[in-house]
Amino acid sequence: MRPTLIVGSIAFDTLHIQGKSHLKVLGGAATYASIAAAHFCPVQLVGVVGRDFPDSAVHLLRERGVDLAGLEIADGETFHWEGRYSEDLSSRETIRTDLNVFADFRPKIPETFRTAPFVMLGNMDPTLQIEVLDQVDKPRFVLADTMNLWIDIRHAELMTLLKRIDLLVVNDAEARQLSGHGNLVRAARELHAQGPKTVIIKKGEHGALLFQGEEIFSLPALPLHGVADPTGAGDTFAGALIGYLARANDLSGPSLRKAVVYGSVLASFCVEGISTERLTSATPADVHRRFEHFRQLTAF
Amino acid sequence: MRPTLIVGSIAFDTLHIQGKSHLKVLGGAATYASIAAAHFCPVQLVGVVGRDFPDSAVHLLRERGVDLAGLEIADGETFHWEGRYSEDLSSRETIRTDLNVFADFRPKIPETFRTAPFVMLGNMDPTLQIEVLDQVDKPRFVLADTMNLWIDIRHAELMTLLKRIDLLVVNDAEARQLSGHGNLVRAARELHAQGPKTVIIKKGEHGALLFQGEEIFSLPALPLHGVADPTGAGDTFAGALIGYLARANDLSGPSLRKAVVYGSVLASFCVEGISTERLTSATPADVHRRFEHFRQLTAF
Repeated sequence: MRPTLIVGSIAFDTLHIQGKSHLKVLGGAATYASIAAAHFCPVQLVGVVGRDFPDSAVHLLRERGVDLAGLEIADGETFHWEGRYSEDLSSRETIRTDLNVFADFRPKIPETFRTAPFVMLGNMDPTLQIEVLDQVDKPRFVLADTMNLWIDIRHAELMTLLKRIDLLVVNDAEARQLSGHGNLVRAARELHAQGPKTVIIKKGEHGALLFQGEEIFSLPALPLHGVADPTGAGDTFAGALIGYLARANDLSGPSLRKAVVYGSVLASFCVEGISTERLTSATPADVHRRFEHFRQLTAF
Repeated sequence: MRPTLIVGSIAFDTLHIQGKSHLKVLGGAATYASIAAAHFCPVQLVGVVGRDFPDSAVHLLRERGVDLAGLEIADGETFHWEGRYSEDLSSRETIRTDLNVFADFRPKIPETFRTAPFVMLGNMDPTLQIEVLDQVDKPRFVLADTMNLWIDIRHAELMTLLKRIDLLVVNDAEARQLSGHGNLVRAARELHAQGPKTVIIKKGEHGALLFQGEEIFSLPALPLHGVADPTGAGDTFAGALIGYLARANDLSGPSLRKAVVYGSVLASFCVEGISTERLTSATPADVHRRFEHFRQLTAF
């Protein structure tokens, strides 16, 4: 099966959420994306961790079919983020960010990973995202994520990156900031003009919008009885999405729509557990049932 | 065809929106709802206006098939609301509310309207909504809207009303306030427990959720290039929804789902024009095309 190359952060997260604290649980964009993508296809992960990264986490990734030939183990500690969620989980504040070994990360793509047809550039400095593209051999499909920080301080680099990717996945605030348009239809049109033929705008609990030229697909999120931890939902969405595309090996409109649904299916599992716990425990049958649940939710 | 009885406010709105002012344009919950419902079925309107209410507005309603036998013309001026929208149209502030003749409104349902099988109780004091139900003869289906003010100051009356209606239509903030639950799935469950078998939660630009017991239908809103005036969108949604149900004469789950789509179709026209201008100019072919547009938007 066609593998997906995923490059990005691997981290420990300390989460303060609904009155409880979860110390140094597994996190990071590439971690969530890899576990999600591995539900659909083989994954090649490139990232850096410190000497403190536990064997259990290595084992968890490896047993799910994640190739760790690109996992660099550097002297020092693993990237650590600490944050606190608001009561209703709609916002969060960063308490501390210790970049540690991630501060000097320069992605080195192993020889065996360079022909991966599907590539996901997780949220990181666009300079590094471009460095990844300079090392790979004409991938068929490139997805990139970004964040407000890079839109602010790496705008030119981000614009260069946009010309080299097929799909940009951002949230609504990022789409507005990057495009300069408050209206999301206009924002997507402006982002198309900057390069990517496909743009996805994530709206959290309100679902996601897929834009391909003038064609729009809108999918609501699954209404959940409760959310345990929203961390990593966006990375999970993107990872499952590209993993599905790699498995389907089909970049048509209908295939992209299904990919958005699978992204939302995995994201809905992600938020039901702390860290990656529910994302890893979901079985293929669970995923299938929830995909059908989305059909029932949206059919008329 | 089965008529729908609609009771509520008829008003003039003065709107300050995107740098322009629109003085005393036609507004009011029952006005928007009646014009929307009249796209689907005969409408019987009950409301009050002042001596200043123009013949042109009477004519506009009548030519669309709205029976005005229940339109009371009282000494004094018509209800007038003045408001200003924020730049991005996501919020608005009230500049003034002159209740005028609406202050003493007591709905009197004409004899010929009392057997209407479908009844919409527009947003007004729940005491008046109950008075309407006391005057009608076992309607098949009753829809009610409300607002934060009544949840605050008429809570007991609202709870009494809930036991006598089939469908409650509220926005997300109202659902949370009325139920005491931040999570919308739990909010809907609590509202079910208070009476209505069906609950719809409107989320504005994020669409709408239909709850029938454990079954949920989620419909995104149509992504629009631009919005001219959001006033009356919720009333339009409810009016079109009950108008469709009256025409279909079918209260099954699939029929209610289609009704939500038609509600959203008419609401999308409503916001594209100032006051009721686009809502009245939309043709049956426009409505049909936009219904199909919702299918394309949501299919996977």
